Amino acid sequence: MGRGVEWAVHSCVNMSWTPPGEAVNSARLAELYKLPAAYLNKQLQALVRAGILTSVSGPRGGFRLARRPESITVLDVVLAVEGPEPAFRCEGILGVVPDADREENFVRTCLISQTMRQAELAWRQALARQTIAGVAGSMERRFPGDRDKTVRHLAAGPP
Amino acid sequence: MGRGVEWAVHSCVNMSWTPPGEAVNSARLAELYKLPAAYLNKQLQALVRAGILTSVSGPRGGFRLARRPESITVLDVVLAVEGPEPAFRCEGILGVVPDADREENFVRTCLISQTMRQAELAWRQALARQTIAGVAGSMERRFPGDRDKTVRHLAAGPP
Repeated sequence: MGRGVEWAVHSCVNMSWTPPGEAVNSARLAELYKLPAAYLNKQLQALVRAGILTSVSGPRGGFRLARRPESITVLDVVLAVEGPEPAFRCEGILGVVPDADREENFVRTCLISQTMRQAELAWRQALARQTIAGVAGSMERRFPGDRDKTVRHLAAGPP
Repeated sequence: MGRGVEWAVHSCVNMSWTPPGEAVNSARLAELYKLPAAYLNKQLQALVRAGILTSVSGPRGGFRLARRPESITVLDVVLAVEGPEPAFRCEGILGVVPDADREENFVRTCLISQTMRQAELAWRQALARQTIAGVAGSMERRFPGDRDKTVRHLAAGPP
């Protein structure tokens, strides 16, 4: 999994803190976390395509959440950044064994494939149980000053 | 996840079927599944390093299971091939925010990191519930002729 997932989730948390209607400048966000601005921007564009963020143009433009943070799960963000493909893809090598039934759907019938799919499902379910609002709430409790500092930094406009 | 995982699990299943004490020739195994022999051999060497297979030298040499198939889980094989690192690695970007406590252990205290670890754990638990013996048994029931065909093919020695 790329580093973009961590950046993307933190970015969404920060956007959940900005005042309603205000957009976050991605260069400012990159500066806050000392991240490469172009690469961060690429992750945020992926979140726009997934319907998690909205891109706002103009001098006060940037990105903001497209839905309420309660309805954005960590899984939504991970799949937006990493793509929807499961980690394991069955290549059906049982089907190349001499005399094998090549029409067989091994993804359904092979226990290796099933086991990998069950594990992927368990992973996704765990990520789907946590939302951006949940992460944001936890951070407000654990790191009390961070929310206000972040909002002030991001409100300053383009760096 | 690389294709090597699928090959490695199928290889272990086949080795669970070969008569006790006999080694499987990896070129013969590659031929059975029409896989690149050098790359398959690399996966099998990784399984040797992980204590899952034993390498046997000599003209009838090759690989055999180092332990009983009941005590080899799919997780063992996946970690041997893919490495033991979790898919998500927290880079602690909260620690670079101005005035952040850089001594903070964000892997423990940040809910993003915790959520990713819980998901990884759920994934590993699902893979740890299935063994090579379980997969082999399922294949014997689902594809009744395959075991004998495979054993005959592999017993023929180097291709």
